[in-house]
Amino acid sequence: MEIDKENQTFPALEALINQESDEKLVEMLTEMPTAHVIDFLKTQEEGQILTLLDLIDHESYGRIFSDLDSETQTFIFSELPRPKMAKIFNYVSSDVRADFYKELELEKQNEFLPYLEKKIREDIIALSSYPSESAGGIMTTDFATIISDMTANEALNKLRQDAPSKQMIYYLYVVNDTMKMQGILTLKNLVYAEPDDKIKDLINEFFVFANVNEDQESVAKKIEKYDLVAIPVLNDYQQLVGIVHHDDAIEIIRAEQTEDMEKFMGIVPTENDLGYLETPSIQHFKKRAMWIVLLALIGLISGMIIHKYKDILEQLIILALYMPMMTATGGNSGSQAATVVIRALSLGEIQDKDWLRIVFKEAKISFMLSFCVAGLIFLKIAFFSYKYPLPAGLTITYIGFLISVAIALQVISSAVIGAGLPLIVKRFGGDPAVAASPAITTVVDITGLCIYFGIVSSNM
Amino acid sequence: MEIDKENQTFPALEALINQESDEKLVEMLTEMPTAHVIDFLKTQEEGQILTLLDLIDHESYGRIFSDLDSETQTFIFSELPRPKMAKIFNYVSSDVRADFYKELELEKQNEFLPYLEKKIREDIIALSSYPSESAGGIMTTDFATIISDMTANEALNKLRQDAPSKQMIYYLYVVNDTMKMQGILTLKNLVYAEPDDKIKDLINEFFVFANVNEDQESVAKKIEKYDLVAIPVLNDYQQLVGIVHHDDAIEIIRAEQTEDMEKFMGIVPTENDLGYLETPSIQHFKKRAMWIVLLALIGLISGMIIHKYKDILEQLIILALYMPMMTATGGNSGSQAATVVIRALSLGEIQDKDWLRIVFKEAKISFMLSFCVAGLIFLKIAFFSYKYPLPAGLTITYIGFLISVAIALQVISSAVIGAGLPLIVKRFGGDPAVAASPAITTVVDITGLCIYFGIVSSNM
Repeated sequence: MEIDKENQTFPALEALINQESDEKLVEMLTEMPTAHVIDFLKTQEEGQILTLLDLIDHESYGRIFSDLDSETQTFIFSELPRPKMAKIFNYVSSDVRADFYKELELEKQNEFLPYLEKKIREDIIALSSYPSESAGGIMTTDFATIISDMTANEALNKLRQDAPSKQMIYYLYVVNDTMKMQGILTLKNLVYAEPDDKIKDLINEFFVFANVNEDQESVAKKIEKYDLVAIPVLNDYQQLVGIVHHDDAIEIIRAEQTEDMEKFMGIVPTENDLGYLETPSIQHFKKRAMWIVLLALIGLISGMIIHKYKDILEQLIILALYMPMMTATGGNSGSQAATVVIRALSLGEIQDKDWLRIVFKEAKISFMLSFCVAGLIFLKIAFFSYKYPLPAGLTITYIGFLISVAIALQVISSAVIGAGLPLIVKRFGGDPAVAASPAITTVVDITGLCIYFGIVSSNM
Repeated sequence: MEIDKENQTFPALEALINQESDEKLVEMLTEMPTAHVIDFLKTQEEGQILTLLDLIDHESYGRIFSDLDSETQTFIFSELPRPKMAKIFNYVSSDVRADFYKELELEKQNEFLPYLEKKIREDIIALSSYPSESAGGIMTTDFATIISDMTANEALNKLRQDAPSKQMIYYLYVVNDTMKMQGILTLKNLVYAEPDDKIKDLINEFFVFANVNEDQESVAKKIEKYDLVAIPVLNDYQQLVGIVHHDDAIEIIRAEQTEDMEKFMGIVPTENDLGYLETPSIQHFKKRAMWIVLLALIGLISGMIIHKYKDILEQLIILALYMPMMTATGGNSGSQAATVVIRALSLGEIQDKDWLRIVFKEAKISFMLSFCVAGLIFLKIAFFSYKYPLPAGLTITYIGFLISVAIALQVISSAVIGAGLPLIVKRFGGDPAVAASPAITTVVDITGLCIYFGIVSSNM
């Protein structure tokens, strides 16, 4: 059955529910990919979700519970008898379990804890002590280990016993008797080894790992760089304490992407799992207000510059006409340059030590851009504004020429500023993304007005 | 040995090279993670790279070759004797192999082809026929299959023979004798099965797959949604033709991120594997020129509006002072709203049918923002600009009030436009990211000037 065609499996499930043919229903609910089951449950009422999940075994229940949204998890938690919930908790993935527990009120935590198996209880308490954005905060403790002193045969037997309770046995982590990590072994290598081979002779001791306090972005980058399915997490004594899966890396990269875009647009990123519509407006307001207000205040500087050139503006009101277009084009040119540089920095394509080459390159690119824009503006003014009343002694061609030169310089200087600001922020240890679009627009508004009025006033 | 501390392994490798202790060197080069070996090779001269890689076995050579940058690949290809290169090609991952082959000149392709084993030759030719951004273009053919008629024991034996030449045997794909996909089985389940169990009774028939013509972004999304290590790729006859790995999904998501940011800033994304500095300036220019020029031309409309209100501007030159700040603040407010909406759309947090709630929410958020900004501007004008010469009958407080009201309306209308434009583009089937920052800035420049002069002129 094609599971990515919802219009095939969903009606099939509905039919089975109506026919009360539980056996077939259980088979589908337990064998279909978790994400697909969850998509189906989302179409059902809360009570029905409970009834359906009640049909399946604890292991599948735990697996599905792990991927449900926190609202449904809370609902199930509030409805299920404690002993049953505790049994299901054995199979909920350990990171989800710890996160769920952390979010419970203290009273509920204390009330639920006694129902749990000792091992699970200890695991939950250990995991919930790590900061949520560290390797410790995102790792799971569902992994298989083997001891380096074992033979291949002993290791395989240990796995046969362990593995049903462990999600993942593809990478085997080899530890000594104090849980100190010795190396890795793939299940493949173990299966192909001679039964009497010693594990310590089979392992690969060159392994990549994360420290339990390491930032989650750095963990994700390691998974990406080394193409890992999972990365072992060690504490400061080199003891194996957990693993982080590749799917967490994808989630972190996605979150980072949102954060980059937000910073890019002067929105202060916050830790928030709620979607756009669920986040209260006041929260949205707080994330945006700082930059909007700060930049509006800085924008007042542009007023001071215009004030300084007020006399020339009064004489030549035509200058006001091209002011918004000039500042906007500068903003666009600067933002484009900043985007490209920030992106190249974050992908590691360029280093801040390349700054001279980068700035020179941006100057070259924007020189070409300025030629196009300034040329068009000159033609527009020279051919379409010739009726414009001008003070004696000035021709529209001359004014058009000065305005175009100013716009050309604006395009070039904006690109150089747009490329340079992120590099400077990076040089001083900041995140280059904060020197992004709105900040650059505001800066080049100010420099642009100086160029614009400077050029015109010094040539009349 | 901690492999993520380069300062430990790199000097160790250097020392081994100087001591000419080849055995230890080979052990490190073959056992260290591929990405780490490549980082080390990057510190070496081209000739030395050849010498080092010549020491190791063909399988490791092929694995490392798969992850080298195309420049070094080309160098190795030009230096190695054809028969050796052909042997290494057996172990180069099939997607890299096909991509490398595709990039060769026709002459070199024809000269090299006869050295390859028949199977590899056919594989290369088949894979290089798929468009590079489709599932077929990114899949590899290195996967293990078992036939549904086998017993568990037969299947294990087949794997023992097959797997050394296959990168990945964690997911087992079960096919019938015409290669039609029947279901999946994990190696874990196979290892735990009874030797005489029939494969067809063990398989899970609910599997996620990609079609060979499917776009790579859709493939990456499936890997992400279903937390897959790899996804099987089927042709239109449901035959298994390849698999796509999770690490490809990460790469696609990264590339998509760059593309989104570029679109966001009015840069036309192009397929280009070169880094920032390697991309010629004229290429950068081409990617940016269209929007810069187009928006500059649209920006001329703002000149026409100012021209219409030229008389009032001449009387009240103070209006010119707050014009750039007003348009910039509108641009920021609009861009922030657009960022948040585009991001929420692409994460699936909102649908375009929610448009009324979204626009209303943005109006609410920006109402709060407008209060802050307008309040500050009013205070600034009322208290710091009282010496400003004004025409008879007008007070600075009144002018300040009108300007603040205009700015407040600008902040609100910009947010609504910023949120609405991407929704409209989406509604008509376009990519909402194109209605991004520069486009919105330009639009709200124009609407802002209408509001600004409209309010002032109708109240004097």
